[in-house]
Amino acid sequence: MSRWKPDAAGRLAKAAIELFAEQGYEATTVAEIAERAGLTKRTFFRYYADKREVLFGGAQELENCWLAGMDAAPEDADPMAVVAAGFGPISDLFADRHPFARLRAGIVAENPDLQERELIKLHRLTGVLQHALAKRGVSDHAAALAAQAGVAVFHVAFGRWTRREAPTSLGALMDDSLDELRSVVTATATATT
Amino acid sequence: MSRWKPDAAGRLAKAAIELFAEQGYEATTVAEIAERAGLTKRTFFRYYADKREVLFGGAQELENCWLAGMDAAPEDADPMAVVAAGFGPISDLFADRHPFARLRAGIVAENPDLQERELIKLHRLTGVLQHALAKRGVSDHAAALAAQAGVAVFHVAFGRWTRREAPTSLGALMDDSLDELRSVVTATATATT
Repeated sequence: MSRWKPDAAGRLAKAAIELFAEQGYEATTVAEIAERAGLTKRTFFRYYADKREVLFGGAQELENCWLAGMDAAPEDADPMAVVAAGFGPISDLFADRHPFARLRAGIVAENPDLQERELIKLHRLTGVLQHALAKRGVSDHAAALAAQAGVAVFHVAFGRWTRREAPTSLGALMDDSLDELRSVVTATATATT
Repeated sequence: MSRWKPDAAGRLAKAAIELFAEQGYEATTVAEIAERAGLTKRTFFRYYADKREVLFGGAQELENCWLAGMDAAPEDADPMAVVAAGFGPISDLFADRHPFARLRAGIVAENPDLQERELIKLHRLTGVLQHALAKRGVSDHAAALAAQAGVAVFHVAFGRWTRREAPTSLGALMDDSLDELRSVVTATATATT
């Protein structure tokens, strides 16, 4: 999820994602990534623990960004509004990463190990959001559900975003998905009461 | 998630879960499980591919049970009502499995590999529910969100259920969690519109 910037980390990420897309994730070595970026293996390992890290290094950034958005929510905001307060900052974070995210999604989709890693990262993210809500005084049960709903909205919206050929606003897609979740969940209330 | 029945599969499951709880999951061998159950290793492998399967063999049963519940929902039911139509059958499926589920939850919580396996199974379950909704004509987007909401409700309610010392109705906890999800998600609608 790195930017396409001409810095070393960005060049390595760009080289890695291109090679993964061209010849497959498994077949690509760190040496090839470094060579394509015009850098050394040593430089690669200064930025990334391994080639998988190129694909998942952005998880921490996403987490920090989401938490910062939540921190900025009014103290009396209800749990889901607190979670949704991260959507704008996340949209900004990914604004110039659509080409990378699209390639990355294709690579992850083809590799079961990477898919498992993605699930684990999303689960970790859910736990972090839940903890942040609990610290604001939200009950454990509501915090767990709001965090899971927030990550489900992010996951579904992010999938839609990466499937679009032209870049669009991730934030708008997250808002749409939250609206749809609300409509899906409340339809039952009308039907059963 | 097997029953405490005096059949071979159930005896093996009971022996395994007891040994996992007593001496740890990693430290327990299939030979020990078979011995405790008064059966042979060969009999063990007739029922389970490996010791992990004792903990996750119920996933297929859960999936089938949930799908059967959804199949029985009225044709014009909205997506969330279709998903919730599985709650009753699931509650019945687990009715006599509380002791096993409690021990199992403790074992999974202590082993990161088992936690990852659990996430993967829940993700698979989400995909199956989503596919079943799509086959009923629900849009991809609504199907994805309803399936994720359903699995989140199951996950949160199941966690509450296994943390209770005395057995209670899993179905009632799932209904509670869906109500809470609805209230969490709609509170935002009120606050932001």
